[in-house]
Amino acid sequence: MESYDDLIIKSSVRFRSSYPLVVPISVIVAVLCLCILIGHLVKKSRWLNESTVTVLIGCAIGTIILFWSKGTNSHILRFNEELFFIYLLPPIIFNAGFKVKKKQFFRNFSTIVLFGVFGCFLSSGIIAAGSWLLLPLVGFTGLKTREYFALGAIFSSTDTVSTLQVLNANETPLLYSLVFGEGVVNDATSVVLLKAIQRPDISIADFKSVAQIFADFFYLFSMSTVLGVFVGLLTAYALKKIYFAEHSTDREIALLVLMSYLSYMLAELLNLSGILTVFLCGIIMSHYAYHNVSDHSKVTARHASATMSFIAETFIFLYLGMDVLDIEKWNQSNSSFGTSLGIQIAIILLICLGRAAFVFPISALTNYMNKNYERTHITFKSQIIIWWAGLMRGAVTIALAFNQFTYKGEAGDFVHATLMKDTLIIVLFTTVVLGSITKPLVRLLVPHHELNNESQQNTYIEELNLPLISLKDSTSTNMLRAKNSLTMLIKRPIYTIHDFWRRFDDTYMRPVFGGPPLSGNSLIILS
Amino acid sequence: MESYDDLIIKSSVRFRSSYPLVVPISVIVAVLCLCILIGHLVKKSRWLNESTVTVLIGCAIGTIILFWSKGTNSHILRFNEELFFIYLLPPIIFNAGFKVKKKQFFRNFSTIVLFGVFGCFLSSGIIAAGSWLLLPLVGFTGLKTREYFALGAIFSSTDTVSTLQVLNANETPLLYSLVFGEGVVNDATSVVLLKAIQRPDISIADFKSVAQIFADFFYLFSMSTVLGVFVGLLTAYALKKIYFAEHSTDREIALLVLMSYLSYMLAELLNLSGILTVFLCGIIMSHYAYHNVSDHSKVTARHASATMSFIAETFIFLYLGMDVLDIEKWNQSNSSFGTSLGIQIAIILLICLGRAAFVFPISALTNYMNKNYERTHITFKSQIIIWWAGLMRGAVTIALAFNQFTYKGEAGDFVHATLMKDTLIIVLFTTVVLGSITKPLVRLLVPHHELNNESQQNTYIEELNLPLISLKDSTSTNMLRAKNSLTMLIKRPIYTIHDFWRRFDDTYMRPVFGGPPLSGNSLIILS
Repeated sequence: MESYDDLIIKSSVRFRSSYPLVVPISVIVAVLCLCILIGHLVKKSRWLNESTVTVLIGCAIGTIILFWSKGTNSHILRFNEELFFIYLLPPIIFNAGFKVKKKQFFRNFSTIVLFGVFGCFLSSGIIAAGSWLLLPLVGFTGLKTREYFALGAIFSSTDTVSTLQVLNANETPLLYSLVFGEGVVNDATSVVLLKAIQRPDISIADFKSVAQIFADFFYLFSMSTVLGVFVGLLTAYALKKIYFAEHSTDREIALLVLMSYLSYMLAELLNLSGILTVFLCGIIMSHYAYHNVSDHSKVTARHASATMSFIAETFIFLYLGMDVLDIEKWNQSNSSFGTSLGIQIAIILLICLGRAAFVFPISALTNYMNKNYERTHITFKSQIIIWWAGLMRGAVTIALAFNQFTYKGEAGDFVHATLMKDTLIIVLFTTVVLGSITKPLVRLLVPHHELNNESQQNTYIEELNLPLISLKDSTSTNMLRAKNSLTMLIKRPIYTIHDFWRRFDDTYMRPVFGGPPLSGNSLIILS
Repeated sequence: MESYDDLIIKSSVRFRSSYPLVVPISVIVAVLCLCILIGHLVKKSRWLNESTVTVLIGCAIGTIILFWSKGTNSHILRFNEELFFIYLLPPIIFNAGFKVKKKQFFRNFSTIVLFGVFGCFLSSGIIAAGSWLLLPLVGFTGLKTREYFALGAIFSSTDTVSTLQVLNANETPLLYSLVFGEGVVNDATSVVLLKAIQRPDISIADFKSVAQIFADFFYLFSMSTVLGVFVGLLTAYALKKIYFAEHSTDREIALLVLMSYLSYMLAELLNLSGILTVFLCGIIMSHYAYHNVSDHSKVTARHASATMSFIAETFIFLYLGMDVLDIEKWNQSNSSFGTSLGIQIAIILLICLGRAAFVFPISALTNYMNKNYERTHITFKSQIIIWWAGLMRGAVTIALAFNQFTYKGEAGDFVHATLMKDTLIIVLFTTVVLGSITKPLVRLLVPHHELNNESQQNTYIEELNLPLISLKDSTSTNMLRAKNSLTMLIKRPIYTIHDFWRRFDDTYMRPVFGGPPLSGNSLIILS
């Protein structure tokens, strides 16, 4: 039997035009096909979901490669941070933005931001403080203060993929929108937070530095938003002006894809958050640019974006499964089994605690704020699902851990190698074990008949009819309108802002950047 | 003003999570967007076409980078053989197979193969012999016999992209099908031919070795075909059996994309011709698998494939333009201007001669063979267009030259560096200068009213009604049919084979692998 290295060398030597990359790419593409087929077959299963299956297939393939190469070769198995951040993450986040149900997303915007930003900060602080207290107790020392903070940021990044595979956007719109929205905002927050913590010019200890982290965070957050919106609007404008017409669907799609990728790359180039930028670019593109292209382009854009995201996601889960078997990581870390187990249990407990500490209070706060609107009431059962949905840790955690604890893919010392290994095990455990419980848990807490109820409730659409101030009308009418608007703004801030935005959008944005026909509200104004 | 290197270092240092790849990717993606926009704007131009414009933009960007980095940095400019063969070529060739008009392609199959295979061999021989005679005359010596053969294979690879941008598949179906078909077959032939020539275990001098090259060639050709057909059928079967249903468009597309890429990779892994394999895989997929997916998937598959191919093509032309300014290549080659010019003129003349030597004889032969079928008569004007269409040299030539004359992107000595540089100049000259003349030439030789005539002629569809041997009918009927079939096979071999294939396809293949509703012919048999 030939080893993997032999195969590579043989195929490279025999003809010069065979490239060393051919072997790993062939293996991974073949396994990806397998994952798609098997993932489809387990759909009806009570416990398994696609991501769990893919991780398990990854483990199996990793084992096979390990035995085939007689325990020596693990290059094909190694998680590659650059591959992840440059090629795999952008399509996933862009698709998230592109397919987001904007109405739901912006209606629950304040709750989502509270969960995603404030929650991430809180949970990160609890994990940092908790690991500072607990890790020495299980015999693991040697971390600097800054590294405890980093640990907090790394383990605050949730992975809601397996929950979203189970929830249905039409059956439980509120729950879906909260889990989905938090997932994206949280990804961006944890990445930006880690960036802020890693800045070399500050020491973590004093209050001024913590304030500096917050300041950095808000700078990165706002600039990334501006960049994403700018690129999205630019694309929409270009597509509207230079109309490519029916026969150039490939040009339209190419421009959409390349421009959104460019937004991510520009953000990374300017040291902003690519995740946040490309997410906003996706939202803007689906809101404006999407309506400036031909019908075929619309179908293609939607599905091509979803397909790229699907392949990238499958690839990541596969990689996670295979990465666990990277021999070198295991050899470098010589911590005792007890210590490792202690670290893992401590961190998993801190994750559960850190999440509980913000999900239930924020839900209560939101329920109190929106007490007149039954539609946005988060039931206790929903709160449990939201809490559970964010317990899984995934690819972003791994990538951040690689970024923090390794240099060019190699952990420098045994402390960092141990943390890398334990991060992997925590991700694997939460994805496979906690992930498997998600499906039954959701079915238990949100029985099917209740799902239908919620979806029926939602067909009742409450519309606010706040008119914009108009030059055509008399001053007194406008004054009255302004007064009414102000009253409503105070009573129901989010709804009113959302409504104002819609009016602004219809009147000023859509005529320039393109968009669907004017909405009902605007017709009322016009008539 | 910052140099390019400074920018890379700065962006890598400031935060550890910025990757060195970010800068070149940002530049290239931004320029690609620019190319798409400008390429669209020049469509109405009399001389320019998209590929010429893209090459020129590449040159311009190359110049800017060169000045910016003060003449030192050319990494971003260097053509990368692996990138080309592993990422850029597969989508282009797959799309060629996927969108090929199968009826036209197979109807003219014999002519296409004569042009693509026999023509490539002949032209390759003429260029090899001619350069063996001419290059020493202009003062360039030092090539081995094998390298003259390699030169023949490298410069026999045509680049028909700019011609196909001008021709229209509906207006001149015969011409389009011949130019398109030859282009693809020729790509595969030249790659396989160079592989056969490069085999280290044979010496080129004697007749036995030349026979060995032919044997190798036919082995590679047939095995690649089998692999492509096999993967295509497997995908079609999987999609038919495991029906993903409407909501899983992303899974269907993912499977189509991954399987076709896998076919290319497997071919490379087994040292076959990936180009030929993925081309056949594309044909099979559009013939069977395409019909097993949902309507949305069909639209997406068609346009996603075209978009990927479009981006890859644009990228390649851009790269060609930029590669010309790779300083190191220029520094290494210290041949005199006169010698270089001599080499370039000699090779361009040989290309013209080598192509004329087969286009006109093969056209005459085909016209003689099909003298009863006016529809497939190749007029003299068409012959000139076919001859002209294949004078351009493109990315495959560059990639093969890199493969032959460099090792890991570096030319070993000055002889090879000179050849590399001259190859680039020849490609640039033929693409920009000869390519610009294509548009006026086609308009001159095929005036618009004539185009319409040809398309009208083609609406007259001559159908053969050869029945398959059927178990249900009596022996005498079958005998009669067999006799009729045999007579027709002798009289019109290609048409009859094509017709038999259609029957076989309807009766045995489509029920298993999926496909469009039975064709008219089969209904006649069934009734």
